[in-house]
Amino acid sequence: MNEPLDDTLSPELLSWVTSANKPDTDFPIQNLPFGRFHTSEDSAWRIGVAIGQYVLDLRKAGLIGHGDMNRLMQATPAERLALRQAISAGLRQGSAQRDLFEAALLPQTAVTLGLPCEVGDYSDFYIGIHHATEVGRQFRPDSPLLPNYKWVPIGYHGRVSTLQVSGSSFHRPMGQVKTPEASEPVLQPSARLDFELELGIFVGQPNRMGMPIPIEQAEQHVFGLTLFNDWSARDLQAWEYQPLGPFLAKSFASTVSPWMVTMDALKPFRRPFVRPEGDPDPLPYLDSADNRAQGAIDIEMEVVLQTASMAQQGHAGDVIARSNFAQAAYWTVGQLLAHHSVNGCALRPGDLLGSGTLSGPTKEQYGSMLELTTGGKHPLTLSNGETRTFLENGDTIILRAYCQREGVRRIGFGECRGTVLPALSQA
Amino acid sequence: MNEPLDDTLSPELLSWVTSANKPDTDFPIQNLPFGRFHTSEDSAWRIGVAIGQYVLDLRKAGLIGHGDMNRLMQATPAERLALRQAISAGLRQGSAQRDLFEAALLPQTAVTLGLPCEVGDYSDFYIGIHHATEVGRQFRPDSPLLPNYKWVPIGYHGRVSTLQVSGSSFHRPMGQVKTPEASEPVLQPSARLDFELELGIFVGQPNRMGMPIPIEQAEQHVFGLTLFNDWSARDLQAWEYQPLGPFLAKSFASTVSPWMVTMDALKPFRRPFVRPEGDPDPLPYLDSADNRAQGAIDIEMEVVLQTASMAQQGHAGDVIARSNFAQAAYWTVGQLLAHHSVNGCALRPGDLLGSGTLSGPTKEQYGSMLELTTGGKHPLTLSNGETRTFLENGDTIILRAYCQREGVRRIGFGECRGTVLPALSQA
Repeated sequence: MNEPLDDTLSPELLSWVTSANKPDTDFPIQNLPFGRFHTSEDSAWRIGVAIGQYVLDLRKAGLIGHGDMNRLMQATPAERLALRQAISAGLRQGSAQRDLFEAALLPQTAVTLGLPCEVGDYSDFYIGIHHATEVGRQFRPDSPLLPNYKWVPIGYHGRVSTLQVSGSSFHRPMGQVKTPEASEPVLQPSARLDFELELGIFVGQPNRMGMPIPIEQAEQHVFGLTLFNDWSARDLQAWEYQPLGPFLAKSFASTVSPWMVTMDALKPFRRPFVRPEGDPDPLPYLDSADNRAQGAIDIEMEVVLQTASMAQQGHAGDVIARSNFAQAAYWTVGQLLAHHSVNGCALRPGDLLGSGTLSGPTKEQYGSMLELTTGGKHPLTLSNGETRTFLENGDTIILRAYCQREGVRRIGFGECRGTVLPALSQA
Repeated sequence: MNEPLDDTLSPELLSWVTSANKPDTDFPIQNLPFGRFHTSEDSAWRIGVAIGQYVLDLRKAGLIGHGDMNRLMQATPAERLALRQAISAGLRQGSAQRDLFEAALLPQTAVTLGLPCEVGDYSDFYIGIHHATEVGRQFRPDSPLLPNYKWVPIGYHGRVSTLQVSGSSFHRPMGQVKTPEASEPVLQPSARLDFELELGIFVGQPNRMGMPIPIEQAEQHVFGLTLFNDWSARDLQAWEYQPLGPFLAKSFASTVSPWMVTMDALKPFRRPFVRPEGDPDPLPYLDSADNRAQGAIDIEMEVVLQTASMAQQGHAGDVIARSNFAQAAYWTVGQLLAHHSVNGCALRPGDLLGSGTLSGPTKEQYGSMLELTTGGKHPLTLSNGETRTFLENGDTIILRAYCQREGVRRIGFGECRGTVLPALSQA
């Protein structure tokens, strides 16, 4: 980073909200992620910022005049930074606005958090090269990584109507399954239900239809990042996915964490983006000096599985995988926006891009059961003796992520939690 | 049809709007399709119904109290029928409400028609079996029709942000293209730009997430049908589509006709749905007595290509293909909704389902340039001597559709028109 750090990132900066000053909080004053919440008295969505264990109601704090997150997301980078600085100024120790802001604080446990905005379109990418290789090996043993992978940030369109916020549950999907031995498919509850460890990228400023976003400007169009779990029914997927890609194997549910962590907050964790020796250079529309110098983001991620019996016994669950965004991703956030819009596709405020499963190269870093159990062949044994190939009813998956390094404050993403309910068969 | 025809379908019924009584109109009083429009004085969308050369403003006619099409689309079938009967009663010859309704009429040429509603999610199917076979042959000569085709109504998710209403134009997309001879892809304007002749299916009543729609109730969830052109960049598609399906090859633009023709209006054109001898029966969740008895709809479709020079010379264009929905489609509208929701996927009012390209079995019935020219190998020669492999800049594609048979009034879909502009390269 050659540019001076913004004052809002200074690691010495403390808040009068004491829970924001604890070393292990996800939400220090250096983070200030945006989300939507409502109270039990008023079901209208409001715009909030997480600070320690609290939510700051931005309208009540006098910082904005409306509760429309998608409208806020259209702000220019300069407007976003001005708002961030105003929030930071009000929350820091010694602030003259403390009384006003304190009246606008609510405990996170006292509010209902929602999807962070209204999502117009959701696209899912496939930038985890270790995931693409491992899964490719299972679906297509002869050609795990297809010839386009190192040239095209592979992606496809997803379903918006079944996006859920962290803390939701969903029914195991029914669908057509055909085993290799069977001559015909049958309709049954998916027997190979899986999670996918992903990051979500929320679009802020739009581009006009027909006007590609140059990679040099791509990050200006990003409002923030979340955790994202792209639940997948592998047996449905294997039977339906050719030739047009996954459909019902994905559209039954996807879970998003409630807090959008801004690119401003992630500045101290940017890293050079380096392709492995011998790989081709990206085409010019996917390449820039800045993307090479600091296109990557050093984000640690982990997956927790809590079974129904663990939940009953008050057991928080087992960490079944740990990964890192910078190590897992073959393409950068900026490259995804530049690619998505190069054909003139319009990206709108609130549109969501999933990263794809962010597996690392080794088994402890695999971001799906498909990989962790090699397609169900090698079950995981959990700390309480239970075993899993794929997910069972009552299982909860919790994704977490955070950035940390010496000398700066830890920035967390909160959690992305979802629970599998039994299938509802047709009455 | 065993049930008695609704009075609104009586072929003797005439309107005091004389242009609605002409034999060749798309919009007789038996049709009454829904759309959105605004005037030059007021840019707010209003709900209208097409009648002859006019639009009836439903709010001004005292029939509804708002202008929110998506809200109207949530109506139950009984509510929809009651509204249809009220509109029909006011427009028929001798109506006591003529003065009120006449004051609510505007010439279609005097208003701006929009997308018929706000679209939440758009999914595209692939139910044209002749198209799937012909295209499959070009992309995968060894396995044109994949083993799942006759079991699964193949579909994938599409992009909503670039849906346009008829009469719009769009820029030729840029994208990665790799020819078989080249060792590396290049970024260039698509050289194989294509149209796709489709129908659009608009969802009315929603289902709850997790609750599949039984096939017996599926059509109750359909608000109406439109024409749909799923523009496609075949060279982008060939390089990007594995393993997750088409993405940028489709997301640059799709065009929708403005009028949603209701299932009520299509009643006289229902046909038995019969699978070819020897094909497997659909799985039970995709099968019903009613679907067999009258699942198909007899809709004639045509594609007109008008080149820039034709337009300059006042030439309306050449019909380059004619097809028929009942002949082209391997799955019914009801089957698509039952399949889409069987995994618990929520369908919301205003969601759009594309049928997929509706090609017939012979060359004159092919619904894309890819098929009409066998992948560009055999150019089309037009009536003015011009030739085409794929679409050129300035070309306009016009889709039309109508239902007709002896003894009932012709029901038309209006038109779905879109024009190709040159690519905008990145500045």
